[in-house]
Amino acid sequence: MGTFRLVLEYDGADFAGWQRQAPGTRAVQTVLEEALARIVGHPAVVVGASRTDAGVHAEGQVASTRLETALDAPTLRRALNATLPDDVAVRALGPVPDAFHALRDARSKLYCYAIWNGDGPSPLRARRFHYVPGRLDVGAMREAARGLVGRHDFASFQTRAAEWRAEAGEAGRERSTERTLTRLELRGEAGGELHLEVEGNGFLRHMVRTIVGTLVEVGRGRRSPRSLADVLAARSRLAAGPTAPALGLTLVRVGYAPPAGGGAAERLDPTRA
Amino acid sequence: MGTFRLVLEYDGADFAGWQRQAPGTRAVQTVLEEALARIVGHPAVVVGASRTDAGVHAEGQVASTRLETALDAPTLRRALNATLPDDVAVRALGPVPDAFHALRDARSKLYCYAIWNGDGPSPLRARRFHYVPGRLDVGAMREAARGLVGRHDFASFQTRAAEWRAEAGEAGRERSTERTLTRLELRGEAGGELHLEVEGNGFLRHMVRTIVGTLVEVGRGRRSPRSLADVLAARSRLAAGPTAPALGLTLVRVGYAPPAGGGAAERLDPTRA
Repeated sequence: MGTFRLVLEYDGADFAGWQRQAPGTRAVQTVLEEALARIVGHPAVVVGASRTDAGVHAEGQVASTRLETALDAPTLRRALNATLPDDVAVRALGPVPDAFHALRDARSKLYCYAIWNGDGPSPLRARRFHYVPGRLDVGAMREAARGLVGRHDFASFQTRAAEWRAEAGEAGRERSTERTLTRLELRGEAGGELHLEVEGNGFLRHMVRTIVGTLVEVGRGRRSPRSLADVLAARSRLAAGPTAPALGLTLVRVGYAPPAGGGAAERLDPTRA
Repeated sequence: MGTFRLVLEYDGADFAGWQRQAPGTRAVQTVLEEALARIVGHPAVVVGASRTDAGVHAEGQVASTRLETALDAPTLRRALNATLPDDVAVRALGPVPDAFHALRDARSKLYCYAIWNGDGPSPLRARRFHYVPGRLDVGAMREAARGLVGRHDFASFQTRAAEWRAEAGEAGRERSTERTLTRLELRGEAGGELHLEVEGNGFLRHMVRTIVGTLVEVGRGRRSPRSLADVLAARSRLAAGPTAPALGLTLVRVGYAPPAGGGAAERLDPTRA
């Protein structure tokens, strides 16, 4: 019996998200648990660092699971990749201390959102880029992005459903909507590919996609970069822009505190390619 | 009535290739002709520079067509992109002299073949990269590639069906299997993404994919780089390696002689974007 950490890559297009949902839907977690059960011969439960939504991709989702198996880590990884469907794969797998918990121990997450701002649609980018036609003022978008870096109450950027639950007290307890963004960087140029890298200690539901939708409105001149301060202050989903589509979003990396023992972390570094 | 040149991008995954096939199959040409007919109100016939196979993608396929329309080129392009399905788009469109013929006038074609040589499958690359696991000697592959540049008889690298037709005389007349490759460049490194750029004045059926399959065998140490001379000399499909899968192949660009009139070519340059 041992605990394992897995680094996963998946194409989110045909998944109803990471988490197990209603029967009949296809979740990454379920597909992974079924493959593990077939290999180790007992039911397996997998915990993911991020509950990515339907359609969201991952280059470096991290998961933990407890398994009873005599297989060594490289063999287990190969067996998993031979069993899993083509749209999900294990990039790295290794033993970790039993105390490791992929969700609870996560310290940071890096997401990347891809926008295609070319002169016309791009079929070869259609599955991974959100197509935004027309002129975008990328300088204004960068200025607006800078105003969101740091610790803020991001209540205006969470999904309406989450907001309603909080208002109705359905969440059981009031949950803080404060989060810290350590990076919000827009790479690329108007008229081509744009990549928004968003790193933080945690994210509200739809937060990255709502930031993207709001920054696009800034790029189109419908909002000023400085108006983002008002959006934050409003603490209402109505103050922000639309939620950008899931297909442009990729979970790139999950960060953890270096293990007390050291050593194993390097081999499992999800940033390696 | 006027002749137009179109530069097309498409994701080949859901197409049975460029050319009109048996009823019930989906060809890029057919989809484009149907969209044109709906817009201009008369049946349209489109000629493509390259008859890309089922599953092969294009960033810069070139097509020509004669249309009776009062629409200007930018309006016609926008109308087409609004009408076409998501997996095909018009990147550029403009009037050309009536003598222009996309297939007959093509002087060169640039293809790119994408290989993923990472340590395990990559779901986010699965639709566009041919996954080749294991160690590849990229230096040997580059040496072998250099031996194919220039004018050669590429009979060993054409599809068996074409070879059989030629033997049986079904082709009506003997067609030359000599072609000139002006570029065969392998970018990238072992263990990651590899991109083979192949440029030439014309290609036999499956020629690029058979070159890729043969170079991969060199990379795996199953053939020596110098054995490629014997493969060429054999003039038999049996001498070359397997045909690499279509999903890794993209038609990047088609080259034409500069127009006598000049001017229009620049706006239509398929390398733009």
